[in-house]
Amino acid sequence: MATDPQIVNVGLVQMSTSDDKSSNIGKACQRIQEAAQRGAHIVCLQELFASPYFCQSEDAAVFDLAEPADGPTVSTIAEAAKQNSVTVIAPIFERRAAGIYHNSLVVLGPDGERLALYRKMHIPDDPNYYEKFYFAPGDLGFMAVRTPHAQVGTLICWDQWYPEAARLTAMRGAQILFYPTAIGWLPQDKAEFGAAQLDAWKTIQRGHAIANGVFVVAVNRVGHEPSANGGIQFWGHSFVADPFGVVLAEGGEGEEVLVVPIDLRRSEATRRNWPFFRDRRIDAYAGIERRFLEGGE
Amino acid sequence: MATDPQIVNVGLVQMSTSDDKSSNIGKACQRIQEAAQRGAHIVCLQELFASPYFCQSEDAAVFDLAEPADGPTVSTIAEAAKQNSVTVIAPIFERRAAGIYHNSLVVLGPDGERLALYRKMHIPDDPNYYEKFYFAPGDLGFMAVRTPHAQVGTLICWDQWYPEAARLTAMRGAQILFYPTAIGWLPQDKAEFGAAQLDAWKTIQRGHAIANGVFVVAVNRVGHEPSANGGIQFWGHSFVADPFGVVLAEGGEGEEVLVVPIDLRRSEATRRNWPFFRDRRIDAYAGIERRFLEGGE
Repeated sequence: MATDPQIVNVGLVQMSTSDDKSSNIGKACQRIQEAAQRGAHIVCLQELFASPYFCQSEDAAVFDLAEPADGPTVSTIAEAAKQNSVTVIAPIFERRAAGIYHNSLVVLGPDGERLALYRKMHIPDDPNYYEKFYFAPGDLGFMAVRTPHAQVGTLICWDQWYPEAARLTAMRGAQILFYPTAIGWLPQDKAEFGAAQLDAWKTIQRGHAIANGVFVVAVNRVGHEPSANGGIQFWGHSFVADPFGVVLAEGGEGEEVLVVPIDLRRSEATRRNWPFFRDRRIDAYAGIERRFLEGGE
Repeated sequence: MATDPQIVNVGLVQMSTSDDKSSNIGKACQRIQEAAQRGAHIVCLQELFASPYFCQSEDAAVFDLAEPADGPTVSTIAEAAKQNSVTVIAPIFERRAAGIYHNSLVVLGPDGERLALYRKMHIPDDPNYYEKFYFAPGDLGFMAVRTPHAQVGTLICWDQWYPEAARLTAMRGAQILFYPTAIGWLPQDKAEFGAAQLDAWKTIQRGHAIANGVFVVAVNRVGHEPSANGGIQFWGHSFVADPFGVVLAEGGEGEEVLVVPIDLRRSEATRRNWPFFRDRRIDAYAGIERRFLEGGE
């Protein structure tokens, strides 16, 4: 089969998890294989795919789940990447040192080699999402990494609400922004706010695609995970948006593997016709590095 | 009638223009009055409301249309603001000096006084939008101004594609971002790209609302304005989005005055529940002031 190097098939593994870590990892490996068999070149797993989203409560014992960035979970996924000759984006709960843990991901190349490590930069802390307890903010900055099929930018979940993160990652040369995610509805909120929350989540990420002329791939988990106050219904809806924000494919609210072809030429064509990078006022953005500006400089 | 100071009624004047400048200005004054009579506190006119969108071709004679920021057009609109006791955002073609012209706006208070001058920061140049010929880039930066009913941030058209502009304006304390605009379809593009263009335009601005927890008000012109290569069909669709990106009201593709109540408390409530400003990584955004970062710092 003749292949066009400008066409990249991205695989999105949207799944539920159980308390059995090895079973979650095994399921992820199966889904990587499935995506590869369906032609995926780059497969992205969801945030913290090896476990339930444990940040619904603060429990120091949970740090037992963390592993080094070259630990057994990564080794297992690296082996799956190699066996299937695909690039895999694998989010992990990283143990860096005693008392320093990160919400991270590794990019594993099709020979199983580690191409990059990213540590989530923006850490939330909200009811049922007590991430500041678990994760030190990333200190590696924003990055793009060359993989065999595309320049890949990686960010994680809460990062997706920050235009600065998307911008800086695109400025590093990313052609595709991947956002492994764990977001859902609090059941008590869903009727009143659910539709608007899901729509805002999609809209702001589609906005990043438009602002930067890049593809956006968001990969979310599914299933209800309980907690003392109702738990979270993870909403799925993993999607791929093109560089003008058009949704090319979108999952439902159950387990799913999406394999979506994207044409990297679309990015160049979009940026030629909507040349936003050309006109950025880099002389006038200094305040961005401040917390707030009200009341003058 | 008891009034709630947290409810602000914004007026959007979406109109077509003719080659008769005084008739365009007269129409705008009528529409300001209409909006005020319907309860508007702050009325926004479209970009370059006093004339057709002349940037479809490059013609030095067109500079005759420009006026100082305290010229007769502004005086006339200031009088309308005063007569109707409303704040008016009035875009102008500003003559600052021989050879220095800006795509600007003034914010006029309900006593007719000038509260602010903003000069468009991001200047496009694309087929049928030859703005770099006419307008020097703004040198006043991004701003918010206190009006009797709200802190108002103003930006103009092409600025709407830049998350940095929205961010910096919100950081100045803006509760509402106003975007007077002149955008439309090239008739030859409309069938293939029209729907995606309109949707991208709405999406990125809704994204600014979400990222910053502010209201967004976009005011666009309508009507077909001819040029040598088919002209532009200005698409209207002026809209108001709330701080979570929900569209509260949207115009059609004909002339229209929208008066839309917004509740400023919604901004605080949204920011409490989605506290994006809290977690900004202001230590890690330095590259934003660069043109591009590919290939390392």
